[in-house]
Amino acid sequence: MRLLLIRHAKAEDAAVWSSDAVRPLAPEGRRQAQHLGARLVELGLACDQLLASPLLRARETAELLHATGAGPEPEEWDVLAPGHDLSELVPTLARQRDTGVARVGLVGHLPSLAAWAEALAWGEVRGHLVLKPAGVIGLELPDSGSLAGQCTLFWLTSPKLLP
Amino acid sequence: MRLLLIRHAKAEDAAVWSSDAVRPLAPEGRRQAQHLGARLVELGLACDQLLASPLLRARETAELLHATGAGPEPEEWDVLAPGHDLSELVPTLARQRDTGVARVGLVGHLPSLAAWAEALAWGEVRGHLVLKPAGVIGLELPDSGSLAGQCTLFWLTSPKLLP
Repeated sequence: MRLLLIRHAKAEDAAVWSSDAVRPLAPEGRRQAQHLGARLVELGLACDQLLASPLLRARETAELLHATGAGPEPEEWDVLAPGHDLSELVPTLARQRDTGVARVGLVGHLPSLAAWAEALAWGEVRGHLVLKPAGVIGLELPDSGSLAGQCTLFWLTSPKLLP
Repeated sequence: MRLLLIRHAKAEDAAVWSSDAVRPLAPEGRRQAQHLGARLVELGLACDQLLASPLLRARETAELLHATGAGPEPEEWDVLAPGHDLSELVPTLARQRDTGVARVGLVGHLPSLAAWAEALAWGEVRGHLVLKPAGVIGLELPDSGSLAGQCTLFWLTSPKLLP
């Protein structure tokens, strides 16, 4: 199974929105998400399942990925909100893997996404992966067994490096 | 300073060449290297310096990157041949960084390139980075101080994911 960890696209300025949970994408962010969705389709990386953080900027990003054909209607997953540990994701990811899901897209936030990727690939978190808004980390899960420290990294890109 | 670790493009079949050192690129590999060079130019990632392993498939890859404008005339660097340790590269890389070189491209082989990248970003080698022929790993070096375990990964792509 392949996992695409997708950071929400560029959002409106935090300073002008009273609630972080309903801060929407900026116009540039909407373009980034649409572009990413089109690229994923073109690259043969459309997802079988799209899971998004409940925060608006992540849900909007996932909706735009869906609208461009990069995955089915997104589902909200509370564990993708800020502040959750990889251990809260792993049982679900392992179950998806074991039921034959080929490609899952998780739309969420920093620092969690980059930290989870490091923990999945190296078993520890160093903060040495750069993930820009609308950037993607691609991980390949092992066919069986535990996930932490056992995944391989096959892709890391920012929107600028995916023209 | 940014470092682009570039694996040589697809080479001719090892079974039909008596010496591994003079095994040339396959026609598909030449196309991959030209495409990568054009993409690096377009993305603003042309290199200030191109260093290549002395093995023919790496030198040919570097020459094609140069021909497409992705860097100056390549220089051979024995340390990029198979079998060298990161410790043999680090003094030269640190010197380039300290003299203000912005972007260096190193064209070489597996498993060294992926192992060096892991050692530069995480301080240890796990073999969990996937680097395809004509694939690229992009690392950002810290502005000063030691390199091992102190670099950040900003890019990892295969030719398929860089259309």
